[in-house]
Order: sequence, then C-alpha cells, then structure tokens
Amino acid sequence: MIQIAILGFGTVGKGVAKVTEKNAAQIEKRIGEPLQVKTILVRHFQDGPYRQLMTDDFSRIEEDDDISVVVETIGGVDAAYTYTKRALAAGKHVVTANKQLICEHGYELLQLAKRRRVHYLFEASVGGGIPILHPLTQCIAGNRIEEVYGILNGTSNYILTQMVQNGASFADALKQAQQLGYAEADPTADVDGIDAGRKICILGDLAFGRQIREEDVPMTGIRGISLEDVKIARRAGYRIKLLGRALRLAENQRTAYVAPHLIHEDSPMAHVEDVYNAIMVRGNAIGDVMFYGRGAGEMPTASAVVADVMECLLTSPRKDDVTWNADSSGFCDPQEVVSRFYFRIDGSLSDALYAFGQVEVLSENGQTVFLTDAISEKKARERAEQLSVCTCLRVLS
Amino acid sequence: MIQIAILGFGTVGKGVAKVTEKNAAQIEKRIGEPLQVKTILVRHFQDGPYRQLMTDDFSRIEEDDDISVVVETIGGVDAAYTYTKRALAAGKHVVTANKQLICEHGYELLQLAKRRRVHYLFEASVGGGIPILHPLTQCIAGNRIEEVYGILNGTSNYILTQMVQNGASFADALKQAQQLGYAEADPTADVDGIDAGRKICILGDLAFGRQIREEDVPMTGIRGISLEDVKIARRAGYRIKLLGRALRLAENQRTAYVAPHLIHEDSPMAHVEDVYNAIMVRGNAIGDVMFYGRGAGEMPTASAVVADVMECLLTSPRKDDVTWNADSSGFCDPQEVVSRFYFRIDGSLSDALYAFGQVEVLSENGQTVFLTDAISEKKARERAEQLSVCTCLRVLS
Repeated sequence: MIQIAILGFGTVGKGVAKVTEKNAAQIEKRIGEPLQVKTILVRHFQDGPYRQLMTDDFSRIEEDDDISVVVETIGGVDAAYTYTKRALAAGKHVVTANKQLICEHGYELLQLAKRRRVHYLFEASVGGGIPILHPLTQCIAGNRIEEVYGILNGTSNYILTQMVQNGASFADALKQAQQLGYAEADPTADVDGIDAGRKICILGDLAFGRQIREEDVPMTGIRGISLEDVKIARRAGYRIKLLGRALRLAENQRTAYVAPHLIHEDSPMAHVEDVYNAIMVRGNAIGDVMFYGRGAGEMPTASAVVADVMECLLTSPRKDDVTWNADSSGFCDPQEVVSRFYFRIDGSLSDALYAFGQVEVLSENGQTVFLTDAISEKKARERAEQLSVCTCLRVLS
Repeated sequence: MIQIAILGFGTVGKGVAKVTEKNAAQIEKRIGEPLQVKTILVRHFQDGPYRQLMTDDFSRIEEDDDISVVVETIGGVDAAYTYTKRALAAGKHVVTANKQLICEHGYELLQLAKRRRVHYLFEASVGGGIPILHPLTQCIAGNRIEEVYGILNGTSNYILTQMVQNGASFADALKQAQQLGYAEADPTADVDGIDAGRKICILGDLAFGRQIREEDVPMTGIRGISLEDVKIARRAGYRIKLLGRALRLAENQRTAYVAPHLIHEDSPMAHVEDVYNAIMVRGNAIGDVMFYGRGAGEMPTASAVVADVMECLLTSPRKDDVTWNADSSGFCDPQEVVSRFYFRIDGSLSDALYAFGQVEVLSENGQTVFLTDAISEKKARERAEQLSVCTCLRVLS
C-alpha cells in the first residue's frame, strides 16, 4: 500500500482523489501496490466522503512516514511554497500543477529535491492532461531543441474559436466563456496572456536548460483582436491563435514571448479549437512533433498529476536530473525574431508599398490589409511608424 | 563513458550513429557521461568513418562487458530475433524499431528482459520519432485506455494527400511516392495496411495489456480508394485517411483493424498531411490526446532510438514492468464496431432508402453517395447486400 497526501481540495485536488479511486486497478497493476489518499490538507473542513481524511495541520503530513508523495494543489505561492519546501525537506516526493510557483521558485525547489533524492514533478502545470514536459525532457532528450510553441490557454482559444466559427465579438465570446465556467470573473490572467506566459517560461526553462524570467517575457493577449481581423484572416486561409513561443536564436541565446499569430489552415495547429491546447516542439533530429489535448479541467489535469505520482514511485530513488540553470543570461528581445507580419491600416495600398516595398494584399476596402515579407518585429515596427496601424500580428512560419 | 553497439547499418543504424555524434553535448548533459558507439555489426564491411568499428561477429558484442546497450536495426525476424535474445541474456539492454519482431516475439522478449532486469524498448517502432509508447505507458498510466487510433503509415498518407490536394489517381500518386523514395518497389506492406496493422497491434498490446495477434486483425489498405470518393468526401467536409484502430469494447473485450476512414475536417487529424503520422489516445480521465510528427525517416526514428538508449541508462536496474499478457482471448470481430458508413452505389436514392431507412445524401449523379446512421459494420454489410456497392468506408466519430 502506497499512501499519499493532497494539499488543497479544489478542482484539481478532488480530481486526483477521484482518479486514484476510479482507476485503482490500472494504477495498482502498474506500480505493483494499491495507491491510497491518506490525508488531505484543507483550511476549512468540508463534508463528504473524504471528511475523515482531512486535517488543517500540515505537520501531520510532514511527520507521517507512511506518506511518500505529497500532491500540492493549493495554487499561488505563499502556503504552496512553504509546504512544498517542508515536504521535500522531509524526503517526500512532491507533484503539482502550480505554474506560478514553478516560474518563481522552480529552480530552487528542484535543487532541494535533488539534494534529498526525491522528485519534484509538474507535468500538469503545462497543457493540463497533455503529456508534454515528460516527452520534452525524456522522449526528445536526444535532440537539440530549437523551438517550442503552442496554444497554451484554453480560455483564450475558446474565445477565438467563438469569434471564428460564430462571428461573436470578443466581449460576447468572453461573456459566454464566463457563463460556461471556462473564464474567471476576472479574466486578466487568461485573456492578457499571463497564464500562457508562465507556461512558455516553464517550457523554455526545460527546452533550453536555462531560466527564463517571467518579467523578461512580453505578453500580449487577445483583447485587441477584432472580429474584422478574424474574418479577413480566415478568408485568406489563416486562423488567429494566441501562441506562447520560446526559440533558440544561437547556442546560448534564446527568447520567448506571448502574442496572437496568424496560422495557415494547412497546419494542424490551426484546427485546435475550443478549450483544447496543443504544443509543437522542434528538435534538430526529430523535426516537428505536436502534442494535443485538453489543456485544463478536473479529470485531465488530475490524470497528469496521478501519472507523475506513479513516476515518483517507479523511479525512486531518482537518478536523472531534469532541471535548468538558474542563470537567465542570454535572453534576447523577441523583437529580433523574424516572421511575416499581418497589418491592417487606415490607409491605401500605396501607403503600404511605400513603407514595406512589397506586400501581399489581403483586403482593400477603405482600410488596407496586407502581409509583409519576413522581417524582424523591430524592422516591421520601424517601417510602420509612418502608417496608421489598426492591427499588427505575427504570421507563424 | 557509456558504450553501445549497433546491429545493422542501414538507414536507422546510420541515423543512430549520427544523432549520437551530432547531439553528444545534449546527451552527455542528460546521462552524465559521454555516449559512444563502440561496435557495429554488419554482414558486409562498408568503407567510411565507421569502418574501424565494424565487425561481422556478434560474439564480439555479446562478450564485451563494456557494451551496456545494443541497438538492433537489422529488421525482420530471423537474425534480429536471435541476436536480441542473446544480447538480453548477456544482461544488455536492447533498443529497436523492429515492429515485426515485437508483434511476433515481443511478449517473450519482454519476459526475458524482465528476468535479466534489463530494458527492451521500442518507442521507434510506432510513429517513428513521435513519442507515443512512452506517453501511453507512463504519462497516461493513470487512465483506463478506451481507444487508440491513428495515421500510422506515412507512405499511404502521402498518397492520399496527393489524391486530395492535387487530384492525382492512386496509381500516379504511388509512382510519385516511389520516385521520392517514400514507397518501396513492392509497396504491399505500406499500401495494403500491413505496416499500419503491426503498429496498431503494438499500440493495442500496450493500451489494453493483452496480446493482439496480427492474424486476427483485418487490414484493408488504400488500393481501393478512387479519386471520385476522395472528391465527394472532400466536398462534404471530410478527408479520407487510412487508420489503424484498437478499441476496448468491454472490460476484457477489445478489437483492432486497419481501414480507410472519412474524418471530418473539424478534427486536427484530418489535417495530418504527407508523410506525417498522428496517433490519438482516448483515456477515461484525460479524454482525447493526440501525438503528431514524422512517422519515419532516418533522423526522427534515430532520435526515438537514442532517447530509449538514454532511458535504459537512466532507469537501470529497471523497476517497472511495461508489458502485456500473452493470452490473446477476448479479441472480438471489429465488424461489431458501430459507426456511420459512407456508401457509393450504382443505384438511386430510393435504393439507398429502401436498404437503410434514412441516409444523408452527399451526391446524386448517376450513382448515389450517402452516409448511413451509426450502425455496426455487420449490419451495414447485411443491409447493403441488395445494393450494387462501389465503395463502403467507415466515418470516424
């Protein structure tokens, strides 16, 4: 019998308890013993089938030698940070989906885990149930990773899908997402790219082996996307998607940012709809590989957490060292990244040609909409200074 | 210094040597020591930079205690089977991409590996470079797997893509694939579904934990697909793709088959083009997850082999037990699987309605093309007995 503790009992915590119970047979077959939730840390006791497992005293978990894995689902930094450190120091594996904590203290917690020869795993922090961190660090480990990008925020993607498929405005689509429980009352973290930004930091840390600091990563969300741009892009064979991107520019140079992009409809990623997420990884041997699935939700996220719990048990004591360097140097301005750009301007085609030399016209109807050749964002902005720009978006290539 | 041997030095074997050299820094960082190819088993010595590593005597590898991992890239069964058994018996890990050998002797070889506490890994046997077996058995291990299906053969997918995008006939598209080196002179294994069939057997073995025998799996390839069906399907919003499918029907009942399917264009899998592969896994907690990438080729396949070599080294001695039950009972006839069907018949709409009660008409132009409601294949065939059927295809739901 293997016993675990869950810290916090919200959506993810409850999901972990459910998956552990529902799939007990599959789990036992794989790890060779039954897996059981022994203790649940809560601030306020809740009635229900798990009532007798609850405590509000973390030391009861910390001092319990029967508990080998602690699942942290509190979220945020303060209490989650303290308890994670104490659990690792007590020689327990810790599994979490807490992307904010990993962005801010991941390196330190991984070092602590390494010293104690336990795991600190966080597959569920990026892409919900989608296996991505594990494949990135293990299955693709024989590659030099050149780029990682993806649709990392399900709420934004749901809103964009509503705009594309049903012609809804941003405001109406957001309201709908809130009614369905896909978006919070304060949707800032989702629609302004902050959630996607934390996820691309974690992906970049692991892909390139060096810390990417959240504050260095420019994050643009989807608030500025108008229905008009969605429609013009669609007619030209593109979908607009919010992407987090992390790229290697040279051996020790890399960058990362979050911004809406035009993606050509030939790409499978253009067809990732609703709350689904997808992450593309480009390796120097493997080429492009994509991972697709539900990026959030109780059961998918819990599925990834439980898989991490099983991995802790099956590879203990740990031998490998999945971590990164705390030194964040070599991070470049993403304005250097070259791509084509989509512009919608208040102006004529000759204005566009005067600024950019040559362009691919998508629409001329009072305003002019065009794609530039491939240039750096810095150059694109310089050349557009004389124009009256309504929209400027990257085209993914 | 970790030393490995490669058996056979064709496309995959050469790729493994190249990836090991090219990405030496990444690999050493991960496993803590340099990784080096020490010996290469060949039948005929080849000139070139690896000449001095070559031998035609397997016992030089078998008896060399410095060699901890053997990479088998001979292919086929005879020699590959013998050498794999001898290497495992000698306490060496074995890594391969040999799907035929795994289909026929995988269970036995895994049992032998288990007894010797070494790994027998074969990620590259399905989906080339795409991480799929590892995610299926580890990252999704907390799920009860309900279904696995995918575009598993790059040659067939290339041919279908040429038919859809360029209006090429099957014969012309095949010729083109052969000229580009995507298809063999004898394309039977690819276009008749045998290659996809072996891959779906391996996926099913791992997903459901019980042997699926190749001879039980009906395999239909793409020879019967006409350009006319491709066009009618496309106009109706579908793409035709060759899928391998393995499904759980009840607790101990499962089935598997290979056949062309109509896939609706809303699905990301409909947009997997050319030689790309994609595999969808449905778990009871995670929902649908998809893995996409290059299903073949020297470097992608070698990338997966090298990742397996690294895993052997990082989790040795092995603790987990990724295998299946040799008992193949509970395999059902895939004719029981329910779906909608696409029919093209020499006949009128009233013939179709008489046979099926109600249908969705896609085309009436001399012939009648329609989709049925969801029924079992067995029923679909029974009802169609009175019709003059040109084409019958499943619709993926």
